[in-house]
Amino acid sequence: MVFPSKLIEEAVAEVSKLPGIGKKTALRLVLHLLKQPLENSAALADALVNLRTNITYCKICHNISDSTTCSICLSNRRDRTLICVVEDMPDVLAIENTAQYSGLYHVLGGVISPVGGIGPSELKIESLLKRIPESEVVEIILALSPTMEGDTTAFYLTRKLKDFNLKISTIARGVPIGGELEYTDEITLGRSIVGRTNYQA
Amino acid sequence: MVFPSKLIEEAVAEVSKLPGIGKKTALRLVLHLLKQPLENSAALADALVNLRTNITYCKICHNISDSTTCSICLSNRRDRTLICVVEDMPDVLAIENTAQYSGLYHVLGGVISPVGGIGPSELKIESLLKRIPESEVVEIILALSPTMEGDTTAFYLTRKLKDFNLKISTIARGVPIGGELEYTDEITLGRSIVGRTNYQA
Repeated sequence: MVFPSKLIEEAVAEVSKLPGIGKKTALRLVLHLLKQPLENSAALADALVNLRTNITYCKICHNISDSTTCSICLSNRRDRTLICVVEDMPDVLAIENTAQYSGLYHVLGGVISPVGGIGPSELKIESLLKRIPESEVVEIILALSPTMEGDTTAFYLTRKLKDFNLKISTIARGVPIGGELEYTDEITLGRSIVGRTNYQA
Repeated sequence: MVFPSKLIEEAVAEVSKLPGIGKKTALRLVLHLLKQPLENSAALADALVNLRTNITYCKICHNISDSTTCSICLSNRRDRTLICVVEDMPDVLAIENTAQYSGLYHVLGGVISPVGGIGPSELKIESLLKRIPESEVVEIILALSPTMEGDTTAFYLTRKLKDFNLKISTIARGVPIGGELEYTDEITLGRSIVGRTNYQA
């Protein structure tokens, strides 16, 4: 695309660097901003730079936070015997939204990915191992994505954690609620049969 | 969603104001920026504010431009007897990309939309009527979207233009190339029969 203006071209180039946004979508977004008052563009720009400049991470669980210790780690209404290990912040949000978990978290900041060049030392694994003896934890829940990388990370963590005399659990894998058996892929269905639980009416 | 940080919340709120971007996509984009160096966020922010602050429009055709007269209006390789009337800048880009048109443009800045509260006075129609006597134009091509609003605008323009003794044409409407007759909607197929042209082998 040949743009009639360098300014448009630069804005489109920057916006289309965002994941999942191509040139056409970027142009649509940029033209939308052009039709809005300057304050809207300025507010967006400020929010982005502000975020990137001032963001802090909880020194205990490494979740994004406005203070050095996050509200979950500080709360006395959370069950301090449970630590749920997740890949990243959206996973914490997703689990919090279920309102089914009241323990603490530990945010790894990624999963082990030889292809992506991410090894265990890039993740907050050492900090988890250091955190355990200082805490009241009795169970570590591994809530990692059921992918090759997630499984590798879970395997690595269980080996590192086996000396601590903790219960190590993983979130249940099986047929999603509302899903049709017929259309469930074989691996999920197979696992859901192997991992069957007692029927609760 | 309850965010663990006010900064994240503000950034997500601003990004999700963009058209077609919901809270979840906004969060994904914001987290992407967090993992990038500060320069990336700053470059994006600068490009957006810079665009909104410094953008200028061509005083002749009202297309976005870096100077007071755009490169198309200034070019002596363009056919000055043709003016193609379009709704907005992306339409100019789309037509330029076809490499089938070498005339000038006139960007209305929208279409007449009683529902959206956009009347003829909000559009660059007066400026088109003023431009014609001062120009060498002999044909006005209406390249507006085949929607209710586009058709209304085209009808309004033809009435305004009828005193100028110009040829007024509209882009062809019919079955898209590569489209299957069977799956073409009735209105398009009907129009393509009524508006049939001589067969050219």
